[in-house]
Amino acid sequence: MTRPGSWRADLMAGAVVAVLLIPQSLAYAMLAGLPPQVGLYASLLPLVAYAALGSSPVLGLGPVAVLALMIAQALGALPAGVSATEGALILAAEVGLVLAAAALLRLDALASLLSVPALRGFENGATLMIAAGQLPVLLGSAAAGFTLPSLLASAAHGGWGARSAAWGAGGVVLLLLSRRARSALLARLAPLLLLVAAMLLSALTPAAAGVAQVGALPSLAVPFGLPRLEAALWLQLLPSAALVALMGFVSSLAVSESLAQRRGEKLLPAAEMRGLAAANLVASVTGGMPVAGSFSRSILLHEAGSVSRWSLVFVAGFMCLAMLMLAEPLAHLPKPVLAATILVAVLGGFSLRHYREAWAYARAEGLLMAAVTVTVLCWSIAAALAIGVVGSVALLIQRTSRPHVARIGRVPGTQHYRNVERYAVECRPEVVGLRIDESLVFTNARGLTDVVLALVREHRERVGEPQRVLLLMAPVNHIDVSALVALQELHAALAAEGLRLELSEVKGPVLDRLRSVGWLERYDVSLYLSHHEGIQAGEHALRPSLADMDAPGQL
Amino acid sequence: MTRPGSWRADLMAGAVVAVLLIPQSLAYAMLAGLPPQVGLYASLLPLVAYAALGSSPVLGLGPVAVLALMIAQALGALPAGVSATEGALILAAEVGLVLAAAALLRLDALASLLSVPALRGFENGATLMIAAGQLPVLLGSAAAGFTLPSLLASAAHGGWGARSAAWGAGGVVLLLLSRRARSALLARLAPLLLLVAAMLLSALTPAAAGVAQVGALPSLAVPFGLPRLEAALWLQLLPSAALVALMGFVSSLAVSESLAQRRGEKLLPAAEMRGLAAANLVASVTGGMPVAGSFSRSILLHEAGSVSRWSLVFVAGFMCLAMLMLAEPLAHLPKPVLAATILVAVLGGFSLRHYREAWAYARAEGLLMAAVTVTVLCWSIAAALAIGVVGSVALLIQRTSRPHVARIGRVPGTQHYRNVERYAVECRPEVVGLRIDESLVFTNARGLTDVVLALVREHRERVGEPQRVLLLMAPVNHIDVSALVALQELHAALAAEGLRLELSEVKGPVLDRLRSVGWLERYDVSLYLSHHEGIQAGEHALRPSLADMDAPGQL
Repeated sequence: MTRPGSWRADLMAGAVVAVLLIPQSLAYAMLAGLPPQVGLYASLLPLVAYAALGSSPVLGLGPVAVLALMIAQALGALPAGVSATEGALILAAEVGLVLAAAALLRLDALASLLSVPALRGFENGATLMIAAGQLPVLLGSAAAGFTLPSLLASAAHGGWGARSAAWGAGGVVLLLLSRRARSALLARLAPLLLLVAAMLLSALTPAAAGVAQVGALPSLAVPFGLPRLEAALWLQLLPSAALVALMGFVSSLAVSESLAQRRGEKLLPAAEMRGLAAANLVASVTGGMPVAGSFSRSILLHEAGSVSRWSLVFVAGFMCLAMLMLAEPLAHLPKPVLAATILVAVLGGFSLRHYREAWAYARAEGLLMAAVTVTVLCWSIAAALAIGVVGSVALLIQRTSRPHVARIGRVPGTQHYRNVERYAVECRPEVVGLRIDESLVFTNARGLTDVVLALVREHRERVGEPQRVLLLMAPVNHIDVSALVALQELHAALAAEGLRLELSEVKGPVLDRLRSVGWLERYDVSLYLSHHEGIQAGEHALRPSLADMDAPGQL
Repeated sequence: MTRPGSWRADLMAGAVVAVLLIPQSLAYAMLAGLPPQVGLYASLLPLVAYAALGSSPVLGLGPVAVLALMIAQALGALPAGVSATEGALILAAEVGLVLAAAALLRLDALASLLSVPALRGFENGATLMIAAGQLPVLLGSAAAGFTLPSLLASAAHGGWGARSAAWGAGGVVLLLLSRRARSALLARLAPLLLLVAAMLLSALTPAAAGVAQVGALPSLAVPFGLPRLEAALWLQLLPSAALVALMGFVSSLAVSESLAQRRGEKLLPAAEMRGLAAANLVASVTGGMPVAGSFSRSILLHEAGSVSRWSLVFVAGFMCLAMLMLAEPLAHLPKPVLAATILVAVLGGFSLRHYREAWAYARAEGLLMAAVTVTVLCWSIAAALAIGVVGSVALLIQRTSRPHVARIGRVPGTQHYRNVERYAVECRPEVVGLRIDESLVFTNARGLTDVVLALVREHRERVGEPQRVLLLMAPVNHIDVSALVALQELHAALAAEGLRLELSEVKGPVLDRLRSVGWLERYDVSLYLSHHEGIQAGEHALRPSLADMDAPGQL
């Protein structure tokens, strides 16, 4: 992971990202319902662990907003006598173990269970919920809740604090103004400068009297130690940990993959999983909270010129320095200012455009995206993820539940075969030529015989009485057990009408499978190298060996 | 549903099936833990309801063994004060309502969620469990349980009854012998003859003293009335009802579809769903239990020459007659004889061959089938169905999580393009030709850019420096929102390397979608009618209108 002369670039990138990470780590710990130092601890050694085992040189690891919201929900139901800090350590340990187990079982492909509509609907919902949850803090109200209904219900009773609101609103305005600054440096430094200025103002003047403040920290020495070992507690947190692990992995992978493509680098999903597992396990024994890759910090690492994962080690070094300087003044930091940094940071991620575009392109997917968002806001994160995954799979099955089969004919004078609906082609009465347009799997296998029989009837009406049905199998990449049974049923149904079933252009791996159980012989199905050859063939079909199939041969 | 002169055939088929249905309806009611008359009631008016609304002329509707086991499990946890009979009526009502709702929402495609390995694994497990559960009844033991471990645990304590065992074993032997009878008529009549003989023997001689008997029935008048309306009870049974509905629909559809194909008839899944919904709703107000199509009785209806759904009405008529004659002697029927008819009926459905064949064809699917069977035997039916569905979907996603993309070149002297790995083909350095071999959806979208970039690198190493990447999209039937985003990422990643993205042979429906959001224009992606044209094209690509695409045009 080193390259000679690259350490200077990594050092610079590390400094730039630390400037963003300091306020974010404090703020996201607060968002998760944890003391601010937990965010700082989660931004130290976990970064070093990822640097050792991960694969991306630009993953901005550490506390992230969406996970913080999930952590807050998970820790909301802890039994009496268990502190949120203890719960966060157990959660981090479980997230690490779940990711390690998934890496061992090579389950990284399951990340694709979260479709884009599910993921974006979820992120938008979480963003809105985070923003809504910060408004009371920003305005000095005691209202709190993990869903909009509970938040509104508790807001109805609480009052507002004018002085808190002034601090909060001031913070938001300054941060928004800084974004319009001509200097990119100023824009990046703004959150840190705001925090330092607020700490000084609050410590040296009475301006923050009566405003909630972070309060005295016990000490800023990393508390090494195993998380509390209590089976019932671990069992209670496990489902949340699994969701945090899934979400953390998918969102980290999304950003590191897209950056790797931009940078022309190769990313290994399995290594990413290992790196995240290690980071979370380290977080659990160093006083931290579950961590993942942040979108904003990853982009920043890339833009600031990070070359290798040493940049993350440098980030951790700068965080260490910052902790030494922050120990004292942090106690005076007004909470509405932290809330302002959260609010401004997350709202940039919200976009109505996603819904509009998904709706325009495919209504059902747009609806799913909206349903997931509403579920995050009004019900729970677990329910939203479940709806997202189940909904995506249901849409896929609904869309693919009828196999695409086209009746094809010969383009006059060529060896090409095209859909009879779209092209002027020739068909021979004695053979029905059909093209199977998709892999045959359980989601579409059930309808195969029906679709084929309907096309055979059409052929009989428009062309003439057939003797054979020849399936062009070139687009078929898999045939699973369900589809194999469907092919047997098709064979029987065709035989009942006195028709022979034949196949052409079967792909190598598919053919290997069929041969492994002697399928072609058992059902006496003829096989042709090319569809044209199959159409031209008379009674006696070739049954070439696999070796023949793989050779360049005839077309 | 009528055809002149067909009523004689339907009458005969009805008589033959009633002969099988009488013993089965009594036995499956017992298997479900219900009084025997419930099975008879479920074999009367529900059949008429299906005849009115269903679509298959050969669906052997009524109580079925697998559902009976599911009903027994569902009714095992009823609160005190609620009889099993009341529970069965609620369950039937809910099954009917779930099916009616699914029919309204056109969810019949969700039946394909149950892959063949899941379905067969489940049916085999249920068959073994039913057989295991009948052994104690057959042998006069008090042991009972819904899983093998609980059954064995309770069998360890109970004793055996020699006289019961003699009745049970005698029944099994006679039924097995009757299967070897030369006369098909005798083989079919055997279960009914056995029941009648056993009733007479038990009523007229002391041979059945000390053996459990069916006992006096209150009366055999159909008890019309609404099921008990109690929200908590309905809520408790709803999950089981959903599973019974899914299983009932899938197993009925499997047999009616396969018979329809054999008979050259058209089956409407939506009408099947409506018919089953009506049958279960009628069962719930006429003292019945959840019903579905039985495999053995459906085959028999077909073989006995049923022409229309009137045959089911005749079955119900014969069941009526039988009830009048059975009211008295049924009380004396020894339970071990009923258990013998269940045992012999279900064991014919078990097959080890299914596991062997699935394992030989695809290990993962064979393992899934075995896992589902073991789960039915040792855990629960709900868990087994969940494992079956989730496992099938997981295997599908695992298998399709990398998109199939092939680098293709021109077969010399033709306009054909084939995989460079398999054929001796020509490639032009300035354009990378790739064939996307499958629909692009969320399960495989994530890996698209990686796979394409790897093939571009290969082209660069082996052929030369490219300027364009031309994707042959002919095999792509859908592009979902996730895949659209993946294409955008691909476009960006290629642009970062100075390469243009181009598409050829995009299917009509896919193109409509892309145009609906102005995608091609926004990303300035060129489109070609044929891959060959795209490869030959220079800087200036055609952007034909949709009308041109649909015309036969050039190849």
